[in-house]
Parts: sequence; C-alpha cells; structure tokens
Amino acid sequence: MTDFTAQLATDADQCADMLDMIFNAQSMQAPRLVDAMRYAVLNGGKRMRAGLVLGAARLAATESDASTYIDSRALRVAAALECLHAYSLIHDDLPAMDDADTRRGKSSCHIAYDEATAILAGDALQTLAFEILADDATHPDPAVRVALVTTLARASGLAGMAGGQMLDLQAETRTLTLAETEQMQMMKTGALIVCAASCGALVGEASSTLVNAIVAYADKLGLAFQIADDLLDYDGDSDGMGKPVGQDAIKGKASFVTLMGVAKAKTEATSLVDNAQMALAPWQDAAAYLRALAGFAVARRS
Amino acid sequence: MTDFTAQLATDADQCADMLDMIFNAQSMQAPRLVDAMRYAVLNGGKRMRAGLVLGAARLAATESDASTYIDSRALRVAAALECLHAYSLIHDDLPAMDDADTRRGKSSCHIAYDEATAILAGDALQTLAFEILADDATHPDPAVRVALVTTLARASGLAGMAGGQMLDLQAETRTLTLAETEQMQMMKTGALIVCAASCGALVGEASSTLVNAIVAYADKLGLAFQIADDLLDYDGDSDGMGKPVGQDAIKGKASFVTLMGVAKAKTEATSLVDNAQMALAPWQDAAAYLRALAGFAVARRS
Repeated sequence: MTDFTAQLATDADQCADMLDMIFNAQSMQAPRLVDAMRYAVLNGGKRMRAGLVLGAARLAATESDASTYIDSRALRVAAALECLHAYSLIHDDLPAMDDADTRRGKSSCHIAYDEATAILAGDALQTLAFEILADDATHPDPAVRVALVTTLARASGLAGMAGGQMLDLQAETRTLTLAETEQMQMMKTGALIVCAASCGALVGEASSTLVNAIVAYADKLGLAFQIADDLLDYDGDSDGMGKPVGQDAIKGKASFVTLMGVAKAKTEATSLVDNAQMALAPWQDAAAYLRALAGFAVARRS
Repeated sequence: MTDFTAQLATDADQCADMLDMIFNAQSMQAPRLVDAMRYAVLNGGKRMRAGLVLGAARLAATESDASTYIDSRALRVAAALECLHAYSLIHDDLPAMDDADTRRGKSSCHIAYDEATAILAGDALQTLAFEILADDATHPDPAVRVALVTTLARASGLAGMAGGQMLDLQAETRTLTLAETEQMQMMKTGALIVCAASCGALVGEASSTLVNAIVAYADKLGLAFQIADDLLDYDGDSDGMGKPVGQDAIKGKASFVTLMGVAKAKTEATSLVDNAQMALAPWQDAAAYLRALAGFAVARRS
C-alpha cells in the first residue's frame, strides 16, 4: 500500500465515522428511513469525493488560517458530498431510471428496502447534505456556509447532476455527438467532482489563485473519471465492478468508448490526468495527495 | 371577494411571477426537465405556504428595518417554499408512493411527463429551493440566508416531511393511534407550514417575541389544516378537490376523522384555528392577513 492509498483509506474511514455521528444525531422517528439512508451512504465506497474535499481543504489550509480546524470541518463537508452522491445513486438505480438491482456488489437501495423507501431515502439524503453544510459546526462564518450551500446546489440542480441525468435518459432515444456527450457527462458526474474540490477549497479558506487551480484540476479530473468509467463499462468485469458491465452497448448508448474508440479514450484519459496534475504543480508536495487521487480515480478497477 | 382573498390572489400571482423569473434565469440545457418543474409548481395552487411567508414577513417588517425591501425578499422565500412543496407533491404522487394520477384536477407530473422525469423534477425542485434561499438576492446578510436554509432543511428531512411521509407509508400496514397520527401529520404537513411562517419571520427580521408567536400560530394552523384535509377526504367531492376523495377509507388508513369522528374533528379544527388566531392577537391589524389565512386554510373546499 502506498502512502496515498493508506491516507485515502484512513480518510474514507474518518468520513464514515463522521457520517455515523451525523446519523446518530438525527431524528429517529422513522427508523426504517434512517436505515435505508445509512445502507446507501455507508456502503464501503472509495470516497473519491470525500478525498477531493479533504485533499483540497488541507492544501488550502497550508496557506490559510484554517489549518487548526481543517480536518473536523472538512470531514463534515466530505460527509455532505457523500450524502449527495449517495442520493444520486439511489435515484439513478430506481426502476424508472437505470433499473439497476446491484450497486457495489450489493443490492441497490430499492431492492434491499422497497421503491418508496428508496425514493424517500434519496430525498432525505439530499436534504441532509444541505443541512450539514448550513450547520455552524461546519464553519463559524455564515458567509462560508452559504457559499458551500450555493456551490452544492449549482452542482446538484438543473445545470448539474439532475440536468445531466435528464440528458442521459434522453440519450437512450437519440445518439449524442461527442460534444453533447462531454456536456452531459460534465453535468451528470463532473459537476459534483468539481463541487467537491471547490467546497474543500472554500472550507480551507483558499486564495483565489488556489481556488482557480483546484477548479482547473477537478475539471480535467471529472472528464477523465467519466472516460475511465466508460472504459470500465466496456472492458471491466462485473465482479470487479460490483455492477453489470457492458450496459452502454446493450442500451445502444453513446459513450466515450463508442464515440472515440478504446485506444483514443485511453490516451485522452491519461492526458486529462496529466493536465489535472499539472494544474497543481506549483504547490509541490502540499498537492501530492490530490495529484495521486487523480491517477487513482482513472486507474481504479472498481 | 373579501380584502383577504383579493390580497391572497395578488400574492399568489406575484409568487407565480417570481417563480417564472427564477426559471427564466435557470440553465436551459435540459428543457424537458424545466418544463416538468414549471408544470408542477406553476399549477394555479392556492399558495397557502407563500401566503404564510408573505404574511409573516410583512407582519415582522412592521416592527423591523426590513420594511423597504420586504416584498422582493419575501417573494423569493415564498417561491422557495412553493418549490419544496411542489417537489413533495410530485414524489408523493409517484406510482411507488400514493400512485395518484391527478393533482388539482390535472394529470400529476409522472402522468403528464413520465416517471423518470417526475423523479428528477422533484429532485431538482428540492435543490432549487435551497439555491433560492442561499442566493444573496434573498437577503444581504449571509447569517439570515443560512438560517433560512437550516429551517427549510429541518422541515424537509427526517424530522419533517420525508420522515412523516415514511411514517404515512408504514401506516398502510398498521393502524396508528391518535397520538401517532398527530405526530406523523405534524412531520408530513405541519413542519413545512411552520417552516413557511418561520422563514417569513426570519426574512422580515422579526423579534424573538414575534417569532415565538408566529411559530405558535403556525403550529396550531398546521394541525387544523390536516384535520380539514381529512374532513375533505371524508365528505368532499372529487370535482371540488381536483383529486379522488375517500382514499383514507379505501386504504383503511387512520385519519383524524376515523379516529375522532366527524363532529369532534370539526370542533377540534375550529378550536385550533381560534387558538392560532389568538396567538397573534397582540399584533392587532398588522396580523389580520395571517388570522384570515388561518380561517381560510380550514374553510377551503379544494
């Protein structure tokens, strides 16, 4: 295990502990709903979005006054991003959407519980993400908290995840061009990746120079990540993925692989990762974690 | 038409105009999704929650420094509350939930569009509600905006609407007691009614004395409103309601009518409205709109 993978594993554990603490403080009036939310979000994911928040926050804190408190604050932001991500996966898996029975090798939420509970668990996880960011334990300055809320809302709404998922659904009846596929994927997946890095920068009180570099990094990474995802769907194995592969081909959907070919897609992903890492080159060792995370996100096998 | 109903109609129109303006400023990348959101929220509802926001905000502004700006700010908060309310109705109507084909005399969102679009439209309306509240056009002070976000998140999440809807679903397999029904309804419906009034008080910069009175008012009103709703389900006609009636009896679900009987339910609703109105008695004419709104909410026939 490299230093990076050990650190990411530690960060994933700490994020899970923070989520556990947050759930313990929630209302227990509807225990089945809380169970379904925990099931979806505490599922042993790799916590790439949490890693982005923490990496960006720690990098920012090396230059700002936030360093003393950074881990406790950034872990709350990471927990919020993971709640929003889990909500999107629950709703994407629903019968009316992608109709996926498994997720990360386990039953998806509507199979483990039922469809109504899964819809509500997603709904309540979205709400919880905003509630966590707005809480004064996340940052003492209300201006920072309201900026976090705005950043998450933009990544989650019409110009982001929800809008992108809508375009993806419509792509089942019409083949998108490469430019349209890029646009759709940047909304559906990239926006939340950029949001995670931006929120880390915000809570770490980054300078505007650093914010711009972190956003440039995350922008490249978001696209590289989606190309890698399409490559996995094309040539991964379903045991390693924990979900069925080859879905794009079965549904006749355009993907970076069908649009570019395998070789070009691999080259493009590698080049995007290089560019992402270069955006943070001036920060040297302080940015080592984020640079390693970019490589990891694209090399991942599950 | 009384002064009150004329004012409520004007307020409903202005809230619809504000929603229209907000949608015009949104990303148009996914036009079908925007259409579905508009369909659900711009549906000619009575805008009771908008009325609560505006009534509470104007009452608060009579005593605070917020009076000059109150209508433009409060209309944004009202629009956010109506987005959250519309989201909850879209998801409640889904086949996996209440499976309702009509809403206010029109096709419900998943019938007019399709199920996937309806799920996403609800998701995006929830996000939009938080985005509106966090925007600096809503209030110049980030502390007020973050308080609005927190108030809405609490009303929407596990301790509020989502938790209450979960308990309501579970009530189809087990008959609730009167105390459990009250608890469930306060979460499912009452929390957002109290939230609307509280958010109005916040944006109007109410004193803590007035906040307490407004919350006491809305608390009584929330319960009265739900009892009135159960009475309508029992003896309303489906043309006037714009949705099928008699659903509680058909599903064997406990309601205030089945638990209390019709006569007691009517007395209780009237007494709760009296108490709601009394909570605002010290504010005399400045609170006339909110007092009339309480009577209207319970007397309504659709």
